[in-house]
Amino acid sequence: MTCTVDEAALRTRTDRQNMRAEDIAEDFPIVSVDSDAVAAARMLAEHSLPGLLVIDASGKPYAVLPAFEILRFILPRYVQDDLALASVLGESGADQATQNLAGKTVGDVLPDYLRNVPSADARDGLMKVAASMAKLRSPLIAVTKDGRLHGAITASRLLAAALKS
Amino acid sequence: MTCTVDEAALRTRTDRQNMRAEDIAEDFPIVSVDSDAVAAARMLAEHSLPGLLVIDASGKPYAVLPAFEILRFILPRYVQDDLALASVLGESGADQATQNLAGKTVGDVLPDYLRNVPSADARDGLMKVAASMAKLRSPLIAVTKDGRLHGAITASRLLAAALKS
Repeated sequence: MTCTVDEAALRTRTDRQNMRAEDIAEDFPIVSVDSDAVAAARMLAEHSLPGLLVIDASGKPYAVLPAFEILRFILPRYVQDDLALASVLGESGADQATQNLAGKTVGDVLPDYLRNVPSADARDGLMKVAASMAKLRSPLIAVTKDGRLHGAITASRLLAAALKS
Repeated sequence: MTCTVDEAALRTRTDRQNMRAEDIAEDFPIVSVDSDAVAAARMLAEHSLPGLLVIDASGKPYAVLPAFEILRFILPRYVQDDLALASVLGESGADQATQNLAGKTVGDVLPDYLRNVPSADARDGLMKVAASMAKLRSPLIAVTKDGRLHGAITASRLLAAALKS
C-alpha cells in the first residue's frame, strides 16, 4: 500500500496549531499613563489606530485606550458630564476640541474597564489570546515575554492569523 | 486706525467650526446583517479594520460590529459560553477558528449594545458626532444624508478632524 501525504497542508496545519502570541505581535505605538492626552489623541489620529497601548511608570503594560473612549474628553465639560446634552450642541465647537482635552493625562481619560489589563504571554496560543480580548472588549492586547513588553496584537490581526486558510 | 486680519487663521477657524459629518465621512466596508460571519471576519482581517458597518435588509444602517466582538465566536463553543474556561485552552485550536464561526450570520455575532445604533446626520457638527460615538462606545458611526447611507466616520478620523491645528 502506498500512502501519499500532502506535506504542505500538513505543515500549514501544524504551523497554525502551534502559532503563539509572539509570532503575530507587532511593534505598536505606546504612551505612558502620565503622558499628555492631547499628544495621545494626535497619535491615534495620525496613525488611524483603533487604540493605544498604555504603560505605567515602570514601563510595564497597564491599560488600553480605545480611540472612541477619548472622544468624550474633546467635548465641552457640561456635555462630558451628561452626554444626553449633546443634542443641544450646534455646529460649532470643533475648534475647542484641543482646548477641552488640554491639561489632561492619558490616565485621566482611560476607561475603568481597560485599566490593569492583563497582558498575553508570548507563548500563549492564539485562541487563548482571542478569549482574553473578547473578555476585555479591547481592540488590542499587549504581549509580554519574560516579563517585558514584546509588542501588541490588534483584534483584526488576530482574526487574520486565525482565519488564514 | 488700521485693522489687520489673519485671513488664513480666520478661514481655518471658520471652516472647522462649520465642519459637518458629511465633510469627513468616508466610504467604508459594509456587510448585511444576514451575510456570512466568516466573510465579515475576513473583511475585518484583510483591511485591518476596527469594525464593520452593518446594514439591514432594506439597506439602512443598523449596527456596528467591532473586530474584538467577533473574536468570541472563533473560539470553541464551550469557551464562548464561559470565557473563564479559556485558561484551559492549550496551544492548539487556531485551525478550527473558521469552523467554529461557520454557519453564523453577522446578526448572530453582533453585540446587543451596538444593534439599532442611530446614525449621524450628514449635517451634524463634529462635536455632536463625537458625543454619539462616546455614548455608543463604538469605533465608528454611519452617516446618513436624506435618509440614505452616505458613509462612515471612525473614531480616529473624527479625532484627526477635530484636533487639526
